[in-house]
Amino acid sequence: MSEQRQSAAVIGLGSMGLGMAQSLLKAGFRVTGFDVNPAAIERLVSDGGTGAATPMAAASDADVIVLVVVNAAQTGDVLYGSAGVAATAKPGAVIISSATMAPDEARGFAARAESAGLLYLDAPMSGGPAKAADGRLTIMASGAPAAFARADAALAAMAETVHRLGDEAGIGAAFKVVNQLLAGVHIAAACEAMGFAAKLGLDLDKVYEVITGAAGNSWMFENRVPHILAGDYKPLSAINIFTKDLGIVTDIGRKQQFPLPVSATALQQFIATAAAGMGQDDDTSIIRMIAAITGIALPKAE
Amino acid sequence: MSEQRQSAAVIGLGSMGLGMAQSLLKAGFRVTGFDVNPAAIERLVSDGGTGAATPMAAASDADVIVLVVVNAAQTGDVLYGSAGVAATAKPGAVIISSATMAPDEARGFAARAESAGLLYLDAPMSGGPAKAADGRLTIMASGAPAAFARADAALAAMAETVHRLGDEAGIGAAFKVVNQLLAGVHIAAACEAMGFAAKLGLDLDKVYEVITGAAGNSWMFENRVPHILAGDYKPLSAINIFTKDLGIVTDIGRKQQFPLPVSATALQQFIATAAAGMGQDDDTSIIRMIAAITGIALPKAE
Repeated sequence: MSEQRQSAAVIGLGSMGLGMAQSLLKAGFRVTGFDVNPAAIERLVSDGGTGAATPMAAASDADVIVLVVVNAAQTGDVLYGSAGVAATAKPGAVIISSATMAPDEARGFAARAESAGLLYLDAPMSGGPAKAADGRLTIMASGAPAAFARADAALAAMAETVHRLGDEAGIGAAFKVVNQLLAGVHIAAACEAMGFAAKLGLDLDKVYEVITGAAGNSWMFENRVPHILAGDYKPLSAINIFTKDLGIVTDIGRKQQFPLPVSATALQQFIATAAAGMGQDDDTSIIRMIAAITGIALPKAE
Repeated sequence: MSEQRQSAAVIGLGSMGLGMAQSLLKAGFRVTGFDVNPAAIERLVSDGGTGAATPMAAASDADVIVLVVVNAAQTGDVLYGSAGVAATAKPGAVIISSATMAPDEARGFAARAESAGLLYLDAPMSGGPAKAADGRLTIMASGAPAAFARADAALAAMAETVHRLGDEAGIGAAFKVVNQLLAGVHIAAACEAMGFAAKLGLDLDKVYEVITGAAGNSWMFENRVPHILAGDYKPLSAINIFTKDLGIVTDIGRKQQFPLPVSATALQQFIATAAAGMGQDDDTSIIRMIAAITGIALPKAE
């Protein structure tokens, strides 16, 4: 499947990137990492990886360059900024780009990578930090067959499921954007429904039990509502992730003249929650914004 | 659990009511049914039930009176209208009311039933015609312990799961309303997301495969999107069910001063689809309304 001891760079060592680096280490990769936060680099080093002072230094000897940054702007800066990785990466190295972005941005990055002699895989992912650390992510990937071939061992190390969605960049990004549309709407709906249930005086634990066995269930309802029931808004995934991702969704809709009224309304609920000072809190904090307006009582942390 | 050969009346023999009557017959009940459509009564008779010319005639000898009508107005008419069932039902009979309605309407019907010497169970259900016919519905029930005791054998015949949610009417209705909020939003979101995926040029079968294994999934996405992929808009559940049910949700919100922006936007999508002449079609027809506006191509029936 791959030569022994391939070298991987992981740029961005947050909760997702660190987990992915750990999965690559477990699979036998030599891993060099960079993050703007020195403490994140220290965690990688304690796990057996190597730290680097710049993205360029991390990537210059890598066969596989994994970008785990938040958006297209950071992706562009790491690849093509003043100290960009693309200029000094090994010829034929593959960039695995995981940020959620518009399909045309992914296509643009891929074209620039290819003209610099690099391979590019448009490979956004689904699954949280726990799955990242266990090598059990779902990756929605598209790109040239040569990019898939070069990335194969690294994808196998990081993911339980790799959806191979097409031969050019942009398709993976589009699938991720559709997933985020649904995920964001479902979080906003879960918070609206649980707030309404509280207003109606229902036992919220019982609502969770009934709904998760009924037609109103969603992956997000099942996954997120326990945070509300526990009164625990420590961010597993923050409100600002979805102000960003539903922002990408609705920006694409506006550019392409495709109306997205449900998504746009859900986005407003994330924006309202950020406006109320909870942008860094768990994305179920929409229900705290609703509670602040309506006076409903929510479960408290023990 | 119950005496042998209890007698049940089923008022409303549409796809749900007929299935519930069949489940009661299989469990050994004598079943008398009424519907405004004579053909529906004939189907019940061919299955071993008895037909009646009026709701009053169907219910006058019944231990259990199951109402499978569409809304609170029909429920009130059958129980308390000019030829209402409540006036002539056997003392101590239990009314099992399954229509989706506001909690205060359920409480009002229960109070009138109790003052007429009857028992009342607020018992909306989840699950389609196939589950109704197999006795595998989920029922969200609340009411007096005596009403549960009297209804016990009939509930067991019709349902796989009976959630016993409280000792007074209104609580079952509230749980159902919360479920319908989520179900309706998720259908609108599924149609918006699949329409957006079509606009982005994605393979829609592949979108279904990827999303059902990812965080964007919902019970409704998984259940309804195959209708879109097959181009089959024969109504399993019609658009007008959700113009009604999200209408109930948002009416309650307005009365109780509880804002429901995501639900209200989803409701507008159902209303727009009904306005475009598809109120009687499958509830995934929202995507056909979107296609009519935007020009996206949808899968055709074979």
